[in-house]
Amino acid sequence: MRSVSVVGIGETKFGRFPETSLKDLILEAGTKAVADTGLGSEAVEALFMSNFNGQPFCGQGHLGPLAAEVLGLGNIPTIRVEGACASGGLAFKQAVSAVASGMYDVVLVGGVEKMTHLSTEAVTAGIAAASDFDREAGIGATFPSIFAMIANRYFHEYGNVRDEMALCAVQNHENALLNPDAQMQKRITVEQVKNGFPIADPFTIYDCSLVSDGAAFVVLAATDVAKAFCPKRLVEVVGCGQAGDSLSLASKGSMTTFAATVLAARQAYAMAGVTPTQIDLAEVHDCFTITQIINSEDLGFFAKGKGAIAIAEGKTAANGQIPTNVSGGLKAKGHPIGATGLSQIYEIVTQLRGEAGARQLKKADIGLTHNIGGTAATCVVSIFQGR
Amino acid sequence: MRSVSVVGIGETKFGRFPETSLKDLILEAGTKAVADTGLGSEAVEALFMSNFNGQPFCGQGHLGPLAAEVLGLGNIPTIRVEGACASGGLAFKQAVSAVASGMYDVVLVGGVEKMTHLSTEAVTAGIAAASDFDREAGIGATFPSIFAMIANRYFHEYGNVRDEMALCAVQNHENALLNPDAQMQKRITVEQVKNGFPIADPFTIYDCSLVSDGAAFVVLAATDVAKAFCPKRLVEVVGCGQAGDSLSLASKGSMTTFAATVLAARQAYAMAGVTPTQIDLAEVHDCFTITQIINSEDLGFFAKGKGAIAIAEGKTAANGQIPTNVSGGLKAKGHPIGATGLSQIYEIVTQLRGEAGARQLKKADIGLTHNIGGTAATCVVSIFQGR
Repeated sequence: MRSVSVVGIGETKFGRFPETSLKDLILEAGTKAVADTGLGSEAVEALFMSNFNGQPFCGQGHLGPLAAEVLGLGNIPTIRVEGACASGGLAFKQAVSAVASGMYDVVLVGGVEKMTHLSTEAVTAGIAAASDFDREAGIGATFPSIFAMIANRYFHEYGNVRDEMALCAVQNHENALLNPDAQMQKRITVEQVKNGFPIADPFTIYDCSLVSDGAAFVVLAATDVAKAFCPKRLVEVVGCGQAGDSLSLASKGSMTTFAATVLAARQAYAMAGVTPTQIDLAEVHDCFTITQIINSEDLGFFAKGKGAIAIAEGKTAANGQIPTNVSGGLKAKGHPIGATGLSQIYEIVTQLRGEAGARQLKKADIGLTHNIGGTAATCVVSIFQGR
Repeated sequence: MRSVSVVGIGETKFGRFPETSLKDLILEAGTKAVADTGLGSEAVEALFMSNFNGQPFCGQGHLGPLAAEVLGLGNIPTIRVEGACASGGLAFKQAVSAVASGMYDVVLVGGVEKMTHLSTEAVTAGIAAASDFDREAGIGATFPSIFAMIANRYFHEYGNVRDEMALCAVQNHENALLNPDAQMQKRITVEQVKNGFPIADPFTIYDCSLVSDGAAFVVLAATDVAKAFCPKRLVEVVGCGQAGDSLSLASKGSMTTFAATVLAARQAYAMAGVTPTQIDLAEVHDCFTITQIINSEDLGFFAKGKGAIAIAEGKTAANGQIPTNVSGGLKAKGHPIGATGLSQIYEIVTQLRGEAGARQLKKADIGLTHNIGGTAATCVVSIFQGR
């Protein structure tokens, strides 16, 4: 298998854009990513598109050839990949494999979602298709309620960390203030989080990630090929792991450890030959505040039951032990589902290149992205190293 | 790249099954495919799922981990692939690449769709998501009307072949009479086709493929590994090509030649080192009668404008020059969208193994599958050789 590097990135601002179509989002982010490589679009040999709910949300499936046409890529092979909120991570992994195997030298990976034109009810029902319909969505268990059960179980096992959980939202909002692409630009307090509009106990609206429109694209190339043209610091994909788990919460071995995260992380660390302590920064899937906390433990950054306390101790802050979601995360940068996994990679590459402006970390050589779908039924963990 | 072979196949009967769930369909076809290999399910290292419209049709996305759970595959990596009606071919190509590259030795590829519980209007609107929403679906151009325009243009360029086009449906129905998995078991005549319920001129209901529930699965293995365990004739994947084209008909270079078919076929023939005359049988995408005719030309079986006449001359019959859709095709075996591309492979493997019973062809050593999505915006062509 060949070494693979990220050689181009592009994304739209995340937010509510009623006048912007799926095609507009694809065009903006895809064009930026290709331009960032210094190559022309004719260099792109294949396109991997990530999208979760194009059909129910926009009446539009078949996004592979749609995006290829919008971006002027001709008759190249395209594919649309779906794994709920992990669609971006999955598409990325497929693309990495295709370049690593020698099938292609240069490929484009893109993710997009448009959902803010829908009612909250339509969005919630649409996202529930990522759960087990028979056992969950079909009987009224939407994701806020599923993850609220997880949070309550976490409190039961490790003690009530409502305040620390609220701090997770506060910190991600704080980070987003420095990210011009972030949807949310609003400082909040622990008291605001706790007293926010109630969603599913213990969650208020501030514990939940955003409903967003947006797109993010990444260009990959074989590292040997990339060296010849890439004008920026090469960011090598040194690890990429993937694992699955049951869709339904009821079928899982644990409510407070995500097996898919543990297994995917193990693969990625082994492939990269690094340990969690060597990671300089991480984008960790935070569809809800409790999700970031549990995942930060399953990724090996903190011991089980210590993820919430770690936030209060400043360990996940930009100047902490493992800066987490410096982009603002799904909570404050936004969560345009199909774009999310690629947007995480956008942030890591931006930091590793030293292009993150006001939010640039001092040390950013090895970064990690963690992307889950549904109730951690799909997980992709990738590790990046600046060269 | 390593040689890859099909070592297991399984499918459900296609039809209208109101009491059968998505999970039931997956369980039946997936279990059959794994059992067919002689291996246990623990041998499966990854799962590639094909599905077009799970969310709008069944409220269920994220079919990768769902299917893995139903089939007892544990925490293996899974993915759901979508390319409209070519989803099955696309998932197959991804899986072939993953084994060829050495990433996995044994993988499972499955496709499923459930749609007969919906109204005709809901099905037609749902399928229209494979077209360009802005330019087609959103302004009322559904696929029957798009392909009807193509048929009329074909008549304009090559002469009125309404009778021969009707014969395409007659022949596929005839073939399905010998296929126990086929949804349609009904002999029809050219007069019946021409006088059937009108859909979009020149099409009647008999020119259109079926609305179906069903699933089809295939197990792939590295050929070297497969030799050690496969109890049946090995069927090697000797060629696999893929190309794309614009979604909208208006953006295409021609209405009567599908560029994606031409390019994908060229790749597949080159990879296999065979010419169209060496193909013993083909499953050719026949969402409408005209589609089979145009594709049979673009695949190189007949000269441009001669595909309809070739049917009348018996060249596509079971005892003809290139037996086509001996399974009954999408027209009469059925078209459960996500399963269709894999169902075509099921037929080729069944024939190459000599297991096709009453419809077994005398010579079946090299077979071809051709699967398109939308208005041939995605095309995958695969070539198989019995060893």
